[in-house]
Amino acid sequence: MASTWVPDVSPDSPFSLANIPFGIISTSEDAAPHGAAAIGSYVLDLKVLTSDPKVSALFPSSLINNSSSSGAIFSQPTLNAFAALGRPTHRAVRAAIQDLLSASTSHPEVLRDNEALRSRALIPTSQARRGGGVTMHLPMSIGDYTDFYAGYHHAFAVGAMFRGPQNALQPNYTHLPVGYHGRASSIVVSGTPVRRPRGQILLNAATGEPTTAPSRRLDMELELGCLVATPNALGEPISVEEAEEHIFGYVLLNDWSARDVQTWEYVPLGPFNSKNFASTISPWVVLADALEPFRTAAIENKTPLQDYLKEGRKDTVFDIELEVDLETPSGDVTTISNSNSKYLMWSFPQMLAHHTLGGCPMRTGDMLGSGTISGPDPKQSGSLLEMSEGGKKDVFLYGMDVRRFLRDGDTVTIRGTCGKPGERVGFGDTQDIQA
Amino acid sequence: MASTWVPDVSPDSPFSLANIPFGIISTSEDAAPHGAAAIGSYVLDLKVLTSDPKVSALFPSSLINNSSSSGAIFSQPTLNAFAALGRPTHRAVRAAIQDLLSASTSHPEVLRDNEALRSRALIPTSQARRGGGVTMHLPMSIGDYTDFYAGYHHAFAVGAMFRGPQNALQPNYTHLPVGYHGRASSIVVSGTPVRRPRGQILLNAATGEPTTAPSRRLDMELELGCLVATPNALGEPISVEEAEEHIFGYVLLNDWSARDVQTWEYVPLGPFNSKNFASTISPWVVLADALEPFRTAAIENKTPLQDYLKEGRKDTVFDIELEVDLETPSGDVTTISNSNSKYLMWSFPQMLAHHTLGGCPMRTGDMLGSGTISGPDPKQSGSLLEMSEGGKKDVFLYGMDVRRFLRDGDTVTIRGTCGKPGERVGFGDTQDIQA
Repeated sequence: MASTWVPDVSPDSPFSLANIPFGIISTSEDAAPHGAAAIGSYVLDLKVLTSDPKVSALFPSSLINNSSSSGAIFSQPTLNAFAALGRPTHRAVRAAIQDLLSASTSHPEVLRDNEALRSRALIPTSQARRGGGVTMHLPMSIGDYTDFYAGYHHAFAVGAMFRGPQNALQPNYTHLPVGYHGRASSIVVSGTPVRRPRGQILLNAATGEPTTAPSRRLDMELELGCLVATPNALGEPISVEEAEEHIFGYVLLNDWSARDVQTWEYVPLGPFNSKNFASTISPWVVLADALEPFRTAAIENKTPLQDYLKEGRKDTVFDIELEVDLETPSGDVTTISNSNSKYLMWSFPQMLAHHTLGGCPMRTGDMLGSGTISGPDPKQSGSLLEMSEGGKKDVFLYGMDVRRFLRDGDTVTIRGTCGKPGERVGFGDTQDIQA
Repeated sequence: MASTWVPDVSPDSPFSLANIPFGIISTSEDAAPHGAAAIGSYVLDLKVLTSDPKVSALFPSSLINNSSSSGAIFSQPTLNAFAALGRPTHRAVRAAIQDLLSASTSHPEVLRDNEALRSRALIPTSQARRGGGVTMHLPMSIGDYTDFYAGYHHAFAVGAMFRGPQNALQPNYTHLPVGYHGRASSIVVSGTPVRRPRGQILLNAATGEPTTAPSRRLDMELELGCLVATPNALGEPISVEEAEEHIFGYVLLNDWSARDVQTWEYVPLGPFNSKNFASTISPWVVLADALEPFRTAAIENKTPLQDYLKEGRKDTVFDIELEVDLETPSGDVTTISNSNSKYLMWSFPQMLAHHTLGGCPMRTGDMLGSGTISGPDPKQSGSLLEMSEGGKKDVFLYGMDVRRFLRDGDTVTIRGTCGKPGERVGFGDTQDIQA
């Protein structure tokens, strides 16, 4: 991979030239949310960039033909219109940006050596930390959100907690990617404060009388979110072979959960208020193409699969190292989990094929959550529910503090990275204060 | 209630002057979907009507101030912008239309005696039947759809089928309105063909091996849908007292269900593919105000309620007579159910208060389904699952035909009506072919 002329790109930055994720920003110069890409500690303002006629000539014609002006796609407040153009366009736009930012760019005069455009289009994110600069917004308008349960070790651990290891997994688990419809309206971008929800809770099972109170078992869930690029029509399933072409990219997802609310409410129709108060996603969408080099095998499923779920390859998931930090109100930070997105038994193409089997239409911007991704080791748990063994065991933190569930003022940060130093492909932190 | 000067309004029309429901139409003259109201066998084109300066002067200023031209609100392809204006505006617009259409209108010159405007704005729906005229569209852009389970007799009957009458209801049922998140992308307007879905089905429980096939247990569900007018912010619950002001209106809802898919998939996270292939709503939204005169008591709940669910009144639901017709491919029509929307244990304000208890944001256009509404008598069942006692008993139809579940080519029609002849308030049929 070539290096970039953009200054100060740390070898550990998740936003190397090999990545080029897309997001929605507003800046002190332009308060209307619009499209951007990330490189090192800079954002590349794509509204500014693609408004320049010299630049727009380098972009695929589908981008230009689809809008009244070449910049219009990235002037919009979400990435939906860009996503809807399909993967060949995403690929070409990413390649064009990679070339512009490469030390050996074939068009040095366009950006690298064009101080006027560079100073307007390339904005240091450190400005954001000083309260000026760049604000990140929800990258897409998400019509429907579906949360799957494809993290095998999580499903097993949680099932064993409730039904014992013999009956940990339901009979359907290895036959189909179990999932449920989530709440799209409460998906927020990282940085949005999450308020501890009130809910109905059965404090004393013996009385059978619930109470209404703030959740005492507020939890996080480490997930990967997959965003849909191109739609399918009502009644027309997406085959598992076609599914990759329907994927725009990926985000980190923290699917906040109120465990005490969940226990009381979830029979017989599934989780509801325990999940719908907030789900946080990272602000940058890593394109499906950027993750291609990091394919790896999913957890082996020995059950013979139905034809519509059979994939022609083994490397159906991604080798993304995942990490969860918990920062206490006093500022102590503990890494409470190290997991990996390969600990899934079902791939996103399988989830898409299953979701649409009966004809359910996907729309551009719809999001599929992987379900909580835990590894086989207890230190790889993707939720406090697992780490605390159902709230029975303390999780030890730096600063002599302990947790079973989240306390007010805790900050949860999720990180995800692939690749070697200098060529890292990763996500912006999903860093959220529970207020 | 005054009578109308509009010709040929049958005393049994659900669209009397006492109703004035709102919908989205396109016409042979104007193919862009836009707003309309219904009166008898006519639609009143509100884009045409409110474009007339004399008419727009009669409408509330909030309608006019909120748009660049007075007609703009009803020129939009959904009712969302109108709904977002809030109940006082809906009330005033309905009153203004009722006055214009009244035999004793205070402004006869505006419409009644204005042949030029009348001929453009008042369109006989019979034209639609001749393939010309009026096409109905989905009335709102529905961001999130939640399906509740508030029909007590349905919950009891289905629970008894699976767990016996002693354990028919789960312990939480009388403490909170049980609900789950549904799929918004597959909500369609009445008249859209519904295709029998394929799905994973466990044909032989003894083997434990599922198969993938078209559903053999395709069912309908008789429900009422409630559409949200004004939003609440993330983290800010809607109180049960405020909830009425957040409601725009109601539609009939047929929540199609594939029972064999449901049985296999729904543990532990709830129904998924069994429900997400299609949900049909009626095209006309009956305003909350139009249903006010038909308030009645809900099914008594003897469980002491949590404070946030306590309503200051008993008449929290509506006395709407509901009817389900099944037409076979050979054209025989049988009324298979007569139910009533009063057979709910939870009101929509209670559902809204519960849904937002933890801070979940409602958006304009979001829909809440009541859950299947069955009466205490088997002839009042809101689903074939109940009528056929879990697929064990034939439901007899005219023409010596029988059903346990739907066959290809069956048409299911749902109807809902309140009030006396000549003053009826009802919904347009939800009439759907299962293809």
